[in-house]
Amino acid sequence: MAGDKFVLHYLTESRASRIVWLLEELNLDFSLKVYKRVGGVLAPKELLDVFPTGMSPVLQIFKEGETEPLTLAESGHIIQYVIRHYDTEGKLTPSSDAEKEKVDYFLHFAEGSLQPHLVSLLVGDVASHKAPWPASYLVKGIVGKINSEYYLKRLKTNLQFLDDVLAKKGGGFFVGDKLTGADIILEFPVGQNVFSNEQRARNLGLDVPPSKAWPHLYEWSKLVAGQPLRKKAVATEKANL
Amino acid sequence: MAGDKFVLHYLTESRASRIVWLLEELNLDFSLKVYKRVGGVLAPKELLDVFPTGMSPVLQIFKEGETEPLTLAESGHIIQYVIRHYDTEGKLTPSSDAEKEKVDYFLHFAEGSLQPHLVSLLVGDVASHKAPWPASYLVKGIVGKINSEYYLKRLKTNLQFLDDVLAKKGGGFFVGDKLTGADIILEFPVGQNVFSNEQRARNLGLDVPPSKAWPHLYEWSKLVAGQPLRKKAVATEKANL
Repeated sequence: MAGDKFVLHYLTESRASRIVWLLEELNLDFSLKVYKRVGGVLAPKELLDVFPTGMSPVLQIFKEGETEPLTLAESGHIIQYVIRHYDTEGKLTPSSDAEKEKVDYFLHFAEGSLQPHLVSLLVGDVASHKAPWPASYLVKGIVGKINSEYYLKRLKTNLQFLDDVLAKKGGGFFVGDKLTGADIILEFPVGQNVFSNEQRARNLGLDVPPSKAWPHLYEWSKLVAGQPLRKKAVATEKANL
Repeated sequence: MAGDKFVLHYLTESRASRIVWLLEELNLDFSLKVYKRVGGVLAPKELLDVFPTGMSPVLQIFKEGETEPLTLAESGHIIQYVIRHYDTEGKLTPSSDAEKEKVDYFLHFAEGSLQPHLVSLLVGDVASHKAPWPASYLVKGIVGKINSEYYLKRLKTNLQFLDDVLAKKGGGFFVGDKLTGADIILEFPVGQNVFSNEQRARNLGLDVPPSKAWPHLYEWSKLVAGQPLRKKAVATEKANL
């Protein structure tokens, strides 16, 4: 356990970013294996050789005394597993069962309900930019209509839901009064994708500045970005690119 | 515990179908509250009043001796919670920790990696049908190109991954040698959406009959459809519509 080693298979600009932070928080012995996206979108073959769906993150745990690594995929599952087995001092683990259930809920919510809309908005945006003029004009219009009637509507509903959760508990972290897996999984879709850059938010199709529309979430995004080990994780990522 | 009652908030043609099956398997005391989709797509306001993201399923548990119900959302989280707390005889729970982790993985995979592509294919299909002629022709072309380059590619990769998992273990259920939460969460996207109807699969954009392309998954879809309590769940749904 103390001698277990971690290899994080890290696709650039991906959800893997959150697992760097998780591993830093728990002071685990890890290294990054970096993969660049093919044509700006899909994973390269080398990543598919590690795990066949080509999604990132993939985390391999080399347990002391075992010859084969344990290979984990899906952000929510990785966070759940690593905290359950390696948060020996309870740093990220809430003390009550009710709060633990809330964290589990957000681990499913982030990927099940929130992130798909962001991915679809991004895919539509890439499609609009890839199409040659004048087709790009048509693609933009059609993609824009699908976005405004479905994906953007759902994204806004989900951001409002998260803002209300924070408003009701008077700000701070998502569950209880300390950092948990809920904050770690939500930082990528909410902090990085929506609040880190107003131009990026406009590119997603958001027609109001997110800091004005969802002020509690905005405060939260600053709170998590300022965590010392989140900053260390950002530095680790930069040093490995 | 024995006296706990369940209310499943059930949006028509939704992931809630799998929770009916789960509750039947564990012989729990539940009722369905049915909601019809507005304009064939989004949830009605009444469902948003129960849980503000408008997603289905939402499960409320009225615990004996407590005044407020526990309200759960996200399929993966609901399945995890209900099995952990109400599978008192271990009917759906694997005996080894390694198998339990595998089930947890599939609970995240189904909603995190697989289902979003199906939803996007469906949204694109609805958009193509809604647009007036001749715009519908353009929309179909553009949506078709986005689908074939992204969503369909990813859907096929994921179906192939699942087929390989079953091939490697010689068929049967997804984890170990019995029904688990993994089969229950995968039945909706894989069984119902891909294998239940060849025309439906073609509408999604699949250009090969799924039964030929992924024969192990096809066998699995028949195995789960034939489970006595899955059949009972289908009857329960019908009786409540």
